[in-house]
Amino acid sequence: MFIVPERDIADLMTQEAAYDAVEKVFASMASGDAYNFPVIREAIGHVGALYGFKGGFDRAGLTLGLKAGGYWPENLERHEIINHQSTIFLFDPDTGRVSAMVGGNLLTALRTAAASSVSINHLARKDAKVMGMIGAGHQAKFQLRAALKQRAFEKVIGWNLHPEMLPNIEEVAREAGLPFEAVELDGMREADVIVSITSSFEASLAADQVSPGTHVACMGTDTKGKQEVAPELLARATVFTDEVAQSVSIGEAQHAVAQGLIAEGDINQIGAVVNGTHPGRSSADEITLFDGTGVGLQDLACAAAVVALARENGTAIEVEV
Amino acid sequence: MFIVPERDIADLMTQEAAYDAVEKVFASMASGDAYNFPVIREAIGHVGALYGFKGGFDRAGLTLGLKAGGYWPENLERHEIINHQSTIFLFDPDTGRVSAMVGGNLLTALRTAAASSVSINHLARKDAKVMGMIGAGHQAKFQLRAALKQRAFEKVIGWNLHPEMLPNIEEVAREAGLPFEAVELDGMREADVIVSITSSFEASLAADQVSPGTHVACMGTDTKGKQEVAPELLARATVFTDEVAQSVSIGEAQHAVAQGLIAEGDINQIGAVVNGTHPGRSSADEITLFDGTGVGLQDLACAAAVVALARENGTAIEVEV
Repeated sequence: MFIVPERDIADLMTQEAAYDAVEKVFASMASGDAYNFPVIREAIGHVGALYGFKGGFDRAGLTLGLKAGGYWPENLERHEIINHQSTIFLFDPDTGRVSAMVGGNLLTALRTAAASSVSINHLARKDAKVMGMIGAGHQAKFQLRAALKQRAFEKVIGWNLHPEMLPNIEEVAREAGLPFEAVELDGMREADVIVSITSSFEASLAADQVSPGTHVACMGTDTKGKQEVAPELLARATVFTDEVAQSVSIGEAQHAVAQGLIAEGDINQIGAVVNGTHPGRSSADEITLFDGTGVGLQDLACAAAVVALARENGTAIEVEV
Repeated sequence: MFIVPERDIADLMTQEAAYDAVEKVFASMASGDAYNFPVIREAIGHVGALYGFKGGFDRAGLTLGLKAGGYWPENLERHEIINHQSTIFLFDPDTGRVSAMVGGNLLTALRTAAASSVSINHLARKDAKVMGMIGAGHQAKFQLRAALKQRAFEKVIGWNLHPEMLPNIEEVAREAGLPFEAVELDGMREADVIVSITSSFEASLAADQVSPGTHVACMGTDTKGKQEVAPELLARATVFTDEVAQSVSIGEAQHAVAQGLIAEGDINQIGAVVNGTHPGRSSADEITLFDGTGVGLQDLACAAAVVALARENGTAIEVEV
């Protein structure tokens, strides 16, 4: 088997490779070649930790395995390591033997950024000029960096509940040579693309704060109760997601579905757009909304890509088991 | 982290160490210190494989993790490796970082044998003389070897649907210096302890083929539909199990409960007997029955024991991740 430690991921994995892996596995999911297993998520009653497994199998990519790990809220303070900790394990689908172990922390950030980036590439207007960010934490930097690759953006605007964090994303805009402007939520009407990445439990963005023709990617809601945008926005938009079952249960769509504003059948798989079996955006005025809930197959696809890269350049640690 | 490959397990792990680990974790489960997560088990639609995860956390032993793997029915024929393949992953419950990876194939056999052995130690009559085996496959050898340590048995009797396999267990009896006798199922009335370890989907042992005072350990039923003994035997017996939720859903007790012969509340945790909060056997005439369904915590406990042994003798492979 091969081991790729967390410390090696930054040198091996690129945003582009993450994009390719995630786009491909979304397509496999939509064509029925790949599926995610039920998610295990447990509050283990020890140092406040949440721990669990996200597994899946991609018959097309022959990728089988799981991401294990979770959230340790005291890590940073007590151990000076990040609170989100995960490891990805790949198995040989022909024999059931473990084939790889890969650090999952940076990959989780990259695959989450890749997901909204895939949605922008396939759903945003080609002439999008203004990129809007809601949220300015650590993950927001990854989302913005990946988003800026997809269109010839001319400006970044951003809002965060705590404005003192906005320099995080301003820095990413500056790296890309773009001006940055802090705005109120009403100012998001100027955006052609909006990515929200918060851990909020109530809507920030109202339906009338989004202009016709905008593409919105809601990336923060991955748990029952979390919410980033008003449910009415989903009713106005054509809604896409990575996995419909997660979208209606733990994703942004949970609220609109619970309130009867949209039905499960109104939600489309982003992979169908990648495959060409869904036409995607139908007009320049349509609002498209991507509900990115995060699935295990994204992690497995990125881990498989990393293992291939690490084997190519000889840094993969090989252990005979 | 530490890696203990499958090839090293046989030299490191003893039946005694497996017994200690399993007895302790059963006690933790009964006292509420340890619990198993929901089991994931998926027919992945590739080479007939069943794949999944059994996870858990033991707050007392600070053991957190999962066993991943399953059943690849074509392995032996196509790849000359065994059909059951599994790997155990341990995590540091204080930080969420992976701490060990351990080959799970032999450990699964040892922990399953340890479970019936724990039940015999705590529930069989002290004067048990005749050991009865139902089943004579690969796993039966492990069960018998572990069982024979628990009492001063004087004879082994055995039955198998395919009698030509009985030499498997006869060999184990001979190793222990005991005579072996092949019997019909009616002959099981002579046994003081019976371990059944088959993959049958209908009852082999009838209720009247078990004498008063016998301890029966049903170790083969781990799936909906499987069955080893008549449900009436569970109604006659005092029933114990590793985990009540599994016992009534996928264990031997599923049939007796479905037929209303016993209720979920009639089933006792074996760990309560270990802890002394359940008195165990109450008379020399009582039939005790252990429904061993197999839980992830057994695997984690044995893996933790192996890692400790491998670190002590210097054979653990250390990888900086």
